[in-house]
Amino acid sequence: MARGRVTRLTACDVRFPTSLGAHGSDAMHTDPDYSTAYVTLETDAEDGLKGYGITFTLGKGTEVVVCAVNALAPHVLNKDLGDIVGDFRGFYRQLTSDSQLRWIGPEKGVVHLATAAILNAVWDLWAKQEGKAFCTLLCWQDPRTLSSCIDFRYISDVLTEEEACEILQKNQAGKKEREAQMLTQGYPAYTTSCAWLGYSDDRLKQLCTEALKGGWTRFKVKVGADMQDDVRRCGLIRDMIGPEKTLMMDANQRWDVPEAVEWMARLAEFKPLWIEEPTSPDDILGHAAISRALAPLGIGVATGEQCHNRVIFKQLLQARALQFLQIDSCRLGSVNENLSVLLMAKKFGIPVCPHAGGVGLCELVQHLIIFDFISVSASLENRMCEYVDHLHEHFKYPVLIQKACYLPPKDAGYSTEMKEESVKKYQYPDGDVWRKLLAAQGK
Amino acid sequence: MARGRVTRLTACDVRFPTSLGAHGSDAMHTDPDYSTAYVTLETDAEDGLKGYGITFTLGKGTEVVVCAVNALAPHVLNKDLGDIVGDFRGFYRQLTSDSQLRWIGPEKGVVHLATAAILNAVWDLWAKQEGKAFCTLLCWQDPRTLSSCIDFRYISDVLTEEEACEILQKNQAGKKEREAQMLTQGYPAYTTSCAWLGYSDDRLKQLCTEALKGGWTRFKVKVGADMQDDVRRCGLIRDMIGPEKTLMMDANQRWDVPEAVEWMARLAEFKPLWIEEPTSPDDILGHAAISRALAPLGIGVATGEQCHNRVIFKQLLQARALQFLQIDSCRLGSVNENLSVLLMAKKFGIPVCPHAGGVGLCELVQHLIIFDFISVSASLENRMCEYVDHLHEHFKYPVLIQKACYLPPKDAGYSTEMKEESVKKYQYPDGDVWRKLLAAQGK
Repeated sequence: MARGRVTRLTACDVRFPTSLGAHGSDAMHTDPDYSTAYVTLETDAEDGLKGYGITFTLGKGTEVVVCAVNALAPHVLNKDLGDIVGDFRGFYRQLTSDSQLRWIGPEKGVVHLATAAILNAVWDLWAKQEGKAFCTLLCWQDPRTLSSCIDFRYISDVLTEEEACEILQKNQAGKKEREAQMLTQGYPAYTTSCAWLGYSDDRLKQLCTEALKGGWTRFKVKVGADMQDDVRRCGLIRDMIGPEKTLMMDANQRWDVPEAVEWMARLAEFKPLWIEEPTSPDDILGHAAISRALAPLGIGVATGEQCHNRVIFKQLLQARALQFLQIDSCRLGSVNENLSVLLMAKKFGIPVCPHAGGVGLCELVQHLIIFDFISVSASLENRMCEYVDHLHEHFKYPVLIQKACYLPPKDAGYSTEMKEESVKKYQYPDGDVWRKLLAAQGK
Repeated sequence: MARGRVTRLTACDVRFPTSLGAHGSDAMHTDPDYSTAYVTLETDAEDGLKGYGITFTLGKGTEVVVCAVNALAPHVLNKDLGDIVGDFRGFYRQLTSDSQLRWIGPEKGVVHLATAAILNAVWDLWAKQEGKAFCTLLCWQDPRTLSSCIDFRYISDVLTEEEACEILQKNQAGKKEREAQMLTQGYPAYTTSCAWLGYSDDRLKQLCTEALKGGWTRFKVKVGADMQDDVRRCGLIRDMIGPEKTLMMDANQRWDVPEAVEWMARLAEFKPLWIEEPTSPDDILGHAAISRALAPLGIGVATGEQCHNRVIFKQLLQARALQFLQIDSCRLGSVNENLSVLLMAKKFGIPVCPHAGGVGLCELVQHLIIFDFISVSASLENRMCEYVDHLHEHFKYPVLIQKACYLPPKDAGYSTEMKEESVKKYQYPDGDVWRKLLAAQGK
């Protein structure tokens, strides 16, 4: 039972200066400082437990998301946690449909990132109060309770509450076996750590060698800024991993539609499984055109990390605009909205391969994809979860990778909690790390 | 020639307590306080001229947009105005594609509203320096200069720079005549002032009577919250205006797709020209389905005030999802992005009927629609601009309506400048008006 009245909600701007090492660099985001608007939720319950929620950002602008969290706070403060999770759909809609605030969204961009951070904290707190890892809490909720967390507004033309319940009900069979499978083998992952756009060829080779030694069999390379560079780097990585292992490419929205088709025709020789974010994340019809053009080359289209809500995902599925769907734990309205996307993907038979990396994204999304396997898709075919090997040391319950697979988290909560000293040290602009860096830059 | 280096950029949270009178109320926004993040741009030029830019909000959350303006400020400060307008596409892209900030958009929601406010101020300042009404400045720019303001990224599959130039070039003929026509007759408008959802039937009747006396022939009514209410109100207004005058309906995103079709089938007897925002502004395929279903009833679909960028408009046009396109002067990336939308609409043969009202939206968008007539569409067929009769008294150069038409603005600038005393009085939370209101609410 969820318990306690929310007495405090704080949001903190925490930034890691990843741009100094070109970690995370791609064709559109050349110098990201992986950051988070970090939410802490406190109640008056005697257990003293706190909920932590993150949303992911790239440095500048994190203060804007923090500001939006504060704007949403009146909808959370003084609420009973029991009332919140007892009418989770109503609470979700309160956050996303405030009559005044929705104008600056709705359900997109800054306010939606802020909504995600708050809701992630609520789920974390609830799981902690139940003493369960969040994925376990989720997997063993009954179908009707799970469906009651979803706002079906604007998606009822493709997924009704009844259909959602049916999908979940159907998968009740075999859940124990799939849970056992996860506990022993884990959920398959791929690595993006080897081939950020800003890395030198030498560094790429070294990281690739290490990853192969570590048992990785699926690799993603950033492309899209310069064709000659791409040909060289893709050739290099394909040579190193051999013809059997899986290679994915990621353009991070760099191209227009015709350009995406031309560019990928050139890179097809390196046999990518998918091209990720070939164009604007808003361009459903564009992704559909690219999908049609690349199908004869055996290249699928993947997208989702910047799809701003379930309405966009609904249309990507309706238009057959993607062959791999990439949910993000922090861009959508937390678990509530991701549940609806997992269920729609199941209905359309499209595999979900989550976006991760950033800061904390692996920690969060592992719960969602393990739930997807156990309770929704019941399949690992064509499925894998992104993994990036950095910033885990700042989390109290970091991910556990074994033989290139995510092992299910066991600690209570949503793995969102950061170490107190990390939050303090990397707080922007007053943490030690930033005071020194900004002083060095003369700021 | 644009001149001066930007020395100061400030953003101010100005809110009008319109919710006290239910002005602006609709099925999704029940108690809006019409507000603006108000930007002032100063340079070191000797002329002492300032640029003013607004973006429209509904009260809460305006502080988040102000925060975003401040986050974008480093891209503006210390820039030469000549360099900005000399490479307007580059400047636009700098604001919208900052490698770190774009993550919290991109080109949508809070950051895009902030971008609009800044760019609106730049256009205002440029027009003031030229000593021209902004629409005049725009109409008499040569096609190549105008096209160079547009970022064609993500829309080149339907509109290239060459095509944009061609459309503008073709309309060079007849511009003088169309300008003269505007000066004498003005641009046709419709009124939304009579039938906000929160108004009583008596009030609706009274306002309708006054509007008819004032020469109005086109009326919009808010619908979508309650079917019985809608039937009564639509019947009432249709009776008052008679069968010949034009009636539009606006659901402000209240419905899911099947619900929209059913609801409008019931309201079809009142012969609406269009149903506006029947569902989520993100649902391109949903709008297309509604358009197909309502076409046999003679009802068109209108949308746009919450379409967050040119990529969404591109798809609405590609999917034949709307029959009336409603640009907004403050949600898109100002004039630069609206230019691309006007040109795409022209290419697809879809009439543009701008969204206005709010605070300042009429003042701004009149420039864009007059430009559209003179330089792009060259037609008034099926075209009209929204008008709402409030808050104009706070502007230094308020709109001029004559016989239900917008008369072209003559003062230099983009009509964005507010009266100093209004800004001071309505500043949130420290202006006189708010100090009193908040004190009365015990806040």
